[in-house]
Amino acid sequence: MNIINLDHISYKPLLPEVKEAMIEAINSDLHNPSSQHKAGEKSAELLAQARENVAALVNAADAREIVFTSGGTESVNHAVKGAAWANREKGNHIVTTNIEHNSVIRSVKRLTSQGFKVTSLSVNESGRVDPKEVADAITDKTILVSVMHSNNETGTIQPIEEIGAITREKKVLFHCDAVDSVGVVPMDVNALNVDLLSFASNPFYGPTGAGGLYVRRGTRIFPLLDGGVQEHNKRGGTENLIGIIGMAKAAQMAAANMDERRAHLEDLKQYLADELPKHLDDYIINTNLEHSLPNLLNISLKYIEGESVMLMLDEENVAVSTKSACATGSLRASHVLLSLGLSHADAQGTLVLAWGVDNTRADIDKLLSALSGVVKTLRSMSPLYKK
Amino acid sequence: MNIINLDHISYKPLLPEVKEAMIEAINSDLHNPSSQHKAGEKSAELLAQARENVAALVNAADAREIVFTSGGTESVNHAVKGAAWANREKGNHIVTTNIEHNSVIRSVKRLTSQGFKVTSLSVNESGRVDPKEVADAITDKTILVSVMHSNNETGTIQPIEEIGAITREKKVLFHCDAVDSVGVVPMDVNALNVDLLSFASNPFYGPTGAGGLYVRRGTRIFPLLDGGVQEHNKRGGTENLIGIIGMAKAAQMAAANMDERRAHLEDLKQYLADELPKHLDDYIINTNLEHSLPNLLNISLKYIEGESVMLMLDEENVAVSTKSACATGSLRASHVLLSLGLSHADAQGTLVLAWGVDNTRADIDKLLSALSGVVKTLRSMSPLYKK
Repeated sequence: MNIINLDHISYKPLLPEVKEAMIEAINSDLHNPSSQHKAGEKSAELLAQARENVAALVNAADAREIVFTSGGTESVNHAVKGAAWANREKGNHIVTTNIEHNSVIRSVKRLTSQGFKVTSLSVNESGRVDPKEVADAITDKTILVSVMHSNNETGTIQPIEEIGAITREKKVLFHCDAVDSVGVVPMDVNALNVDLLSFASNPFYGPTGAGGLYVRRGTRIFPLLDGGVQEHNKRGGTENLIGIIGMAKAAQMAAANMDERRAHLEDLKQYLADELPKHLDDYIINTNLEHSLPNLLNISLKYIEGESVMLMLDEENVAVSTKSACATGSLRASHVLLSLGLSHADAQGTLVLAWGVDNTRADIDKLLSALSGVVKTLRSMSPLYKK
Repeated sequence: MNIINLDHISYKPLLPEVKEAMIEAINSDLHNPSSQHKAGEKSAELLAQARENVAALVNAADAREIVFTSGGTESVNHAVKGAAWANREKGNHIVTTNIEHNSVIRSVKRLTSQGFKVTSLSVNESGRVDPKEVADAITDKTILVSVMHSNNETGTIQPIEEIGAITREKKVLFHCDAVDSVGVVPMDVNALNVDLLSFASNPFYGPTGAGGLYVRRGTRIFPLLDGGVQEHNKRGGTENLIGIIGMAKAAQMAAANMDERRAHLEDLKQYLADELPKHLDDYIINTNLEHSLPNLLNISLKYIEGESVMLMLDEENVAVSTKSACATGSLRASHVLLSLGLSHADAQGTLVLAWGVDNTRADIDKLLSALSGVVKTLRSMSPLYKK
């Protein structure tokens, strides 16, 4: 069964080189990197090398600014809660946006039950937050601004550099959830003026269960996982060395092949955007085509349910998703799409199409031909559709 | 270079069957278990199966009572902080002991900065807490008792079942940090009367970076990692499926071979205890030989530094440790040993000897012969030693 994976936002297949590195790590019986005997030293060296590779991917000045975590969600929780707790005496106000991933939204909500106040900004119709609104929202009580780099459902990229210039000037900590961007588009924590940057390994073809948090030197932040002195005292717990080695190999490959990959992904995006109107009508493109990831397009198909489309495409061995995999099981319409101004009905007809380096134009053709049949069938049964 | 690993408390080598299961998972390109198409469903089934295997190891009535985490430290932080936050309106008092792992000690300390109060109980000379003292410490403000199952430095096992009977009667939540016990000795969350039980995969020969938290059905607890609806809404973040599959295989093997392994480990413990006096004098055994893990012995060698012993044994290809790997880099004497009443000087001469299923009596012989030479050399240079 050969499945065409156009659900790369939920899972990206491990690169052969990543698999190889992880299998080698598994077979090497790597001892605890904190142990001070020979066996531990070898692991400590591998850990240090991995940290260098990952630091390079986000252009961190010092590898010690990278904290290895169990993934994007831990990184975000650590950044948002750890920074809020550590700076509580300076103030209790946090600025964020309505379209963040649930890991930010729910972390911030948790903090409100501990006395923090939150301003959550709307995006405009093109899906972007206005840096001026961020500036206006900052008060003398503000200790943290958290804005995502790219949205995980629409792929739309936010004006992070401009926001970073504002937070830098106002001396407020800036966290950027860059989980779906790091390793996909070039990332420079210094150009962006961020103090904290969350990322995960799978979006650049590394293993799930491995991620990182960039913490600019001097940033006041508490650990989320209190315990041992690992990760320069920022995160307790024995390191997931096999996962970290896989992530580091993926980071190396992402840095080396960034331009080539992007060109290929952009080509598929353009091809999909050009071909769509030849196969479908009555749809809305929710992605800001000018400012967005090269590997994702979010469309809403009017008069039908995205869920049904997904299941029928699955029958034809085409995998897509309707929303963030993290929101599976929730019947509510996407908060991101509602924030963009979509009606509930239109939001329910949404597909997230996300491709990867292994996809081709032929896969897009297959998708479009399957999709056009599925949409025709579903609309013929839809009481909402009249044509 | 063939290293004799008597530092199993820092790292246990993956079992061949665990390696095989992880490598198969790596090569299977397992999609996100939250995705609702065919590729995701297969992963969801593997995740559910893994949960059953892990639940069986602690005799959980329902596999949904297991939350997969990134390891013991996350489990402990989740249990302690999550239970404290969720039950804040009932009270703000926590009871624990002086010999807990730093993940408990520092989690509880973090909570004191948020308005929680802590009573930390001492242990008696045999290294155990008195259940009656736990009962006496509980007030009408107490919301959580946290006592470890076995100590990670001494291996001494606490009277958890008796404490559990008390917390059950007094209707206070009971968390047990069982990281070094689960998979090593039989574990039954119902017999122990615990509401929360933390464990990790490596102590039973699974991968680091994978652990679990048992949460009794109905226990009020907040997530530590807020985000998606994974893990029955108790822990956001895409699952570390490769690590979880490795842990589940290790859990299966631990359950199947528990008796045989224990007999072998107990034999080595008895052999070591019997042989020690033939090779060494002037030492203290810090482990409660009656109530302790079968795979660990903690001894303090008078007049010398454990650190030097460890490094000299390393030269002879014998790996041991002087303390918890999580405390590497700290120059302070172990808080566990000081709590037992050891002097600072004696505590500095400590070795943690921990063996595994792959060790033999010949390894113990090798250790003792190397150790006796090393101790002789170091004492001959020690200004404290006069004989």
